[in-house]
Amino acid sequence: MSSQAENVEDSRLARLQEILASGAVREATRLLRSLAPAEIAHLIEALPPAEREIVWNLVDEEHDGEILVLVTEEVRAQLIRHMDAEELLAATENLDLDDLADLVQQMPSAITAQVMDALDDQRRHRLQAVLSYPEDTAGGLMNTDAVTVRPEVTLDVVLRYLRRLGDAVPTSTDKLFVVNRDDNYLGILRLSQLVTRDPEDTVAEAMSLAMQPIHADMPTTEVARRFEAHDMLSAPVVDADGRLLGRITVDDVIDVIREEGEHQFMGRAGLSEEEDMFAPVLASTRRRALWLGINLATAFLASWVIGRFEETLSQIVALAVLMPIVASMGGIAGSQTLTLAIRGIALGQLSSSNARALLLKELAVGTLNSLIWAVVVALIAGVWFNSTQIAVLIAAAITINLVFAAITGSLLPLLLERVGIDPALAGSVLLTTVTDVVGFLSFLGLATLFLV
Amino acid sequence: MSSQAENVEDSRLARLQEILASGAVREATRLLRSLAPAEIAHLIEALPPAEREIVWNLVDEEHDGEILVLVTEEVRAQLIRHMDAEELLAATENLDLDDLADLVQQMPSAITAQVMDALDDQRRHRLQAVLSYPEDTAGGLMNTDAVTVRPEVTLDVVLRYLRRLGDAVPTSTDKLFVVNRDDNYLGILRLSQLVTRDPEDTVAEAMSLAMQPIHADMPTTEVARRFEAHDMLSAPVVDADGRLLGRITVDDVIDVIREEGEHQFMGRAGLSEEEDMFAPVLASTRRRALWLGINLATAFLASWVIGRFEETLSQIVALAVLMPIVASMGGIAGSQTLTLAIRGIALGQLSSSNARALLLKELAVGTLNSLIWAVVVALIAGVWFNSTQIAVLIAAAITINLVFAAITGSLLPLLLERVGIDPALAGSVLLTTVTDVVGFLSFLGLATLFLV
Repeated sequence: MSSQAENVEDSRLARLQEILASGAVREATRLLRSLAPAEIAHLIEALPPAEREIVWNLVDEEHDGEILVLVTEEVRAQLIRHMDAEELLAATENLDLDDLADLVQQMPSAITAQVMDALDDQRRHRLQAVLSYPEDTAGGLMNTDAVTVRPEVTLDVVLRYLRRLGDAVPTSTDKLFVVNRDDNYLGILRLSQLVTRDPEDTVAEAMSLAMQPIHADMPTTEVARRFEAHDMLSAPVVDADGRLLGRITVDDVIDVIREEGEHQFMGRAGLSEEEDMFAPVLASTRRRALWLGINLATAFLASWVIGRFEETLSQIVALAVLMPIVASMGGIAGSQTLTLAIRGIALGQLSSSNARALLLKELAVGTLNSLIWAVVVALIAGVWFNSTQIAVLIAAAITINLVFAAITGSLLPLLLERVGIDPALAGSVLLTTVTDVVGFLSFLGLATLFLV
Repeated sequence: MSSQAENVEDSRLARLQEILASGAVREATRLLRSLAPAEIAHLIEALPPAEREIVWNLVDEEHDGEILVLVTEEVRAQLIRHMDAEELLAATENLDLDDLADLVQQMPSAITAQVMDALDDQRRHRLQAVLSYPEDTAGGLMNTDAVTVRPEVTLDVVLRYLRRLGDAVPTSTDKLFVVNRDDNYLGILRLSQLVTRDPEDTVAEAMSLAMQPIHADMPTTEVARRFEAHDMLSAPVVDADGRLLGRITVDDVIDVIREEGEHQFMGRAGLSEEEDMFAPVLASTRRRALWLGINLATAFLASWVIGRFEETLSQIVALAVLMPIVASMGGIAGSQTLTLAIRGIALGQLSSSNARALLLKELAVGTLNSLIWAVVVALIAGVWFNSTQIAVLIAAAITINLVFAAITGSLLPLLLERVGIDPALAGSVLLTTVTDVVGFLSFLGLATLFLV
């Protein structure tokens, strides 16, 4: 089904590229005007750098800020590079505070100071509040546009208050936050309650106490899980004293979830979730080189193991032909276990308390599978090289490697997590190091013991 | 930061497991009562099968339905297996229609019939509507609890209407849907507008026309992107004639996004995003065996290539020692390109119109990196085996393999997508097949030409 979704965007991208190639600036402008800022941001990311800049210059200036917030960091840096202070300042004007905070952190500090100066006192004060929390905490994610009400007033008063606020009420408002005189968070008043209850009821009667506030230092990944568990559209953020600081809305949470998924997927290949598809060649080469270097070190380790058995290999060349199979089967089986474990950790479903159960299950699966495939490989290898000994040897080596793979795949991610290394990034490299080394060692080692 | 999030859930899981081990049923029940259904579902997934069933029996029956909807398919099947028809029927009672539709599809058909019979006419009619659309389309995702209003009435009338509906208005309501007499979708009326505008205004005056309705057959991945692009909390779903069928809420979209991410991550290792961490050993072994079998075939292909050079290998054993390095470097470099391309396709940012730009960039990155690492590997290998010839050979082979890796990594996913094969699932296997074969072929082939 997904091909249909892509076709819509494919054709949009293709059309824009065609228009750009033909130089029909007015037509391109018209196309861009018909799109939401998020759609333009999405298109810009999909364009090679040269076309990006053309499109960026055609975009309606009032959307500049929003688009800058939505593109990935690398693309943002590229777009900002060609903007002068005045343009940057203009871009920040209509932004929500949480978005402004994200943007400000990437701007040259001279411009940040100008942005700060241009804000009114209240907005500057609020921006500083958001900036005082790390980006990956609730405080860094929150917006300060929460509409607050007091518990003692009637719903009718609230309705009149909202009408007076008018457009100052954000369109994404689904609930109001009930606070006392000291701004302490007390509860929420859903708009759906506000419009269904008797207007003579007080806020205290109509409000819900069930929503636990989010502390400003809660990590965003936990915020996301809380939103998912309770199907929330927005939630209050409080400081250590329970004072309301702002609210988090579900659209920001969606970005967190999207990034979490990309982090796992991209991390596997040593890439950041912010990796730009059309990053500059040199920058890209440098980042990739690091990853290739790490992997080269592990590959040399495996080679060194093989090198210990040069003597054996020179006598039985069949071993050289078959040894990649042993290593490869271990790597594949181990990466399945590893994947399961990394997801479990990311979801908070795997920890030391149930690691033993996972290990036992994976050992059972690994052992069963090693038996099945040891037999298959033994049969093929035995016939191929016409040798029962080689058949038995490779069967034994595969069994050993798959058992090691199950153990490593289950326990390595937890171990890495405990010592503070991201398993999504390091797990795969380390696992294949183990399965390569164990694979070559067991196969060539057994051969040296029994065949030579 | 994420470790803190996990600690909260770790400790919850650990505490529950301790309580279960000590047999303190009342304490376990109390703990479960303090959790939301989604949190219980999350915990159940994290438990080994035996403990799952204990917990499942302790859960408050009124949450059964919700929990069943929230756990992954496999876990659901396990939980349903031990429920009789009456319990299953009871579990379906308080469910939203979209959730009920998901659940009904997994129940024994005899029970489905009973569920259908137990519904009132309107609910049955609506359930059938949802069931008539595939699960991965907007129609399958939608709920039929949209509150509709007519354009000609005043906001005051709407407010009175909502007060009469009272609790029948879903708490997740952020907007009402404006329809004409024939139920044709006209626009939306945000609650935030309803409460801020003059009550004497008509719906027609206060409504927004900007929200395009979603067609029931739109794939869920595109629905998700639409929600993300426009920061929507809910959206109208219409049939081919523009008649309003229901609405999609953002919490369902979050599930889609979460699953999309898991599909990519798990698919890489040949696992489904629904894979249960504690799946039964035999079921798990069977599924894994298939993947191992596919990979074994590709490993044998690589072995066969090596086998073509037995003669060469028997003369120069150093080649056997070094050949895994050539294959491995190609595999790593290629998987980086592949990862970038798969994400691009999934986000709708990579298609035939910009594939050339990606290919050129990846070729440049691959070539630069191959030059860097060819030199490094050549130096190490040359010193190790004291041979300039081997140094030159391995440098050439690595360069060739990295160039092939860049081409394969860039173009293979698009090719697979075009012929209808999921690149997230097949891409990685095919890529390493190419890099293994090209790696061994170039290294051993060049050696045969120039060294023997």
